Amino acid sequence: MEILKEINVVKEVIKKIKSNNQSIGFVPTMGYLHEGHLSLLKKAKEKSDVLFLSIFVNPIQFGPNEDLDKYPRDLERDVELAKKAGVDYIFFPNELKMYPPGYSTYVMVEKFTEGLCGAKRLGHFKGVSTIVLKLFNIIRPDIAVFGKKDAQQLRVIEKMVEDLNLDIEILGGEIVREKDGLALSSRNKYLTLEERKEAVVLNKSLELAELLIYKGEKNSNVIIEKVEEFINSNSNFGKIDYVEIVDYKNFEKISELSGEILIAIAVYIGNTRLIDNRILNL
Amino acid sequence: MEILKEINVVKEVIKKIKSNNQSIGFVPTMGYLHEGHLSLLKKAKEKSDVLFLSIFVNPIQFGPNEDLDKYPRDLERDVELAKKAGVDYIFFPNELKMYPPGYSTYVMVEKFTEGLCGAKRLGHFKGVSTIVLKLFNIIRPDIAVFGKKDAQQLRVIEKMVEDLNLDIEILGGEIVREKDGLALSSRNKYLTLEERKEAVVLNKSLELAELLIYKGEKNSNVIIEKVEEFINSNSNFGKIDYVEIVDYKNFEKISELSGEILIAIAVYIGNTRLIDNRILNL
Repeated sequence: MEILKEINVVKEVIKKIKSNNQSIGFVPTMGYLHEGHLSLLKKAKEKSDVLFLSIFVNPIQFGPNEDLDKYPRDLERDVELAKKAGVDYIFFPNELKMYPPGYSTYVMVEKFTEGLCGAKRLGHFKGVSTIVLKLFNIIRPDIAVFGKKDAQQLRVIEKMVEDLNLDIEILGGEIVREKDGLALSSRNKYLTLEERKEAVVLNKSLELAELLIYKGEKNSNVIIEKVEEFINSNSNFGKIDYVEIVDYKNFEKISELSGEILIAIAVYIGNTRLIDNRILNL
Repeated sequence: MEILKEINVVKEVIKKIKSNNQSIGFVPTMGYLHEGHLSLLKKAKEKSDVLFLSIFVNPIQFGPNEDLDKYPRDLERDVELAKKAGVDYIFFPNELKMYPPGYSTYVMVEKFTEGLCGAKRLGHFKGVSTIVLKLFNIIRPDIAVFGKKDAQQLRVIEKMVEDLNLDIEILGGEIVREKDGLALSSRNKYLTLEERKEAVVLNKSLELAELLIYKGEKNSNVIIEKVEEFINSNSNFGKIDYVEIVDYKNFEKISELSGEILIAIAVYIGNTRLIDNRILNL
């Protein structure tokens, strides 16, 4: 495994790989890898000849009051995990190389970024789509894998690739959870012991939503209300950021459930903002 | 020469060209070709093995009160001119294939699009950079040539390519002029005979600016004032849209002239909006 820091070096490596007709699999991350990331790497490896992982805490996807500075980093540990996962190359660029002074170009996937996290984290998805497009242009992968925990992100990237006529297959990796149901996230590290126990309320509230739908409930507002009620009455530190239900294909709000739907929630547990979701096919 | 209308067909052709290790030259246009376009094609042909021309009147770069509907079109004539210019493939897509229902992704080159035409034609450059990126992703050229008449457009595309880490060499083609100095433009067709005579005022005002600078004038505002004065006192149908001087590299306004500068003007002659410029190295 090699760690590459320079864009031009990566481009040379890519040229060689392409000239050998080898396919490239890619998993972009912000590092501090957990089992969720590892499952994405596994999926990418199965479908490609050469496996790239990028580790870059992308400053432009953080808002001014968000956790850019304290976002957890541990390159040494990431390198060990990546080796075990069969990664061939880690791309680990520095910020100044990705955004040199005078940097000016941004990509926006409109409509799809108006609700959910897009409404709550202004500019977040502009930062995400921009860095992902840059990484795609540098690494030119055949396939790229994104976790379904960030369901809106996955859909935004799918849409960007489709709209911009890129030849990259985007795959979604299933959410990996702790034994008690908490979705893995690098941000779980922020939780105190007490908060950690309570954080399970996100997944539990989604289980309730599934149960209600299974029992025949078709009204979005009823489900949203019950989920909110559940979170509020089952947590001391929890503060709901949003509970939303949208059509997964076009990300429009729906009042009556049918087709492929996304139930997405964001909840502050203490100061830590966690997200979780269900994608259901009705 | 072949005319291709389907994105997937173009992509197949491109794959074949790339697998033969042939380089691709590209000139994107809105058609209604004139000698200016032909000079761009010539430049691209000299530097590449296979020459692509695209003809697409891009709806999203026109404002609601602009000339999208009446923009001149003549495919038959364009095809003849392209043949003579040694074009190998014309990409002539239809609007619905480029922007299918639900299309949502846009590219913005900020800062560089705040002044000049960017300030006067809101959303114009968002449309330009988006279509050019899409075309680049479909055709994957090694070099692409843009006319210097649209100096801001050329710089915006250069900046986009740099920022998004694309491996495309962007070349500027010199402005081609009528004998009396009027810069060639598909929009010159809109001019009445009287207006056509008067349209030379754009180039003449820039000649004055050059003369003033040659004589030692370093103050932007003085030059802008003299240019405006000249246009106002030498035209009946003319109405200035803007006269601006910026640093060509970063597109910031400058008060004292030095380095590489752009003097750019836009003038309505009757109802027709014309642009012209000088890029000077001081």
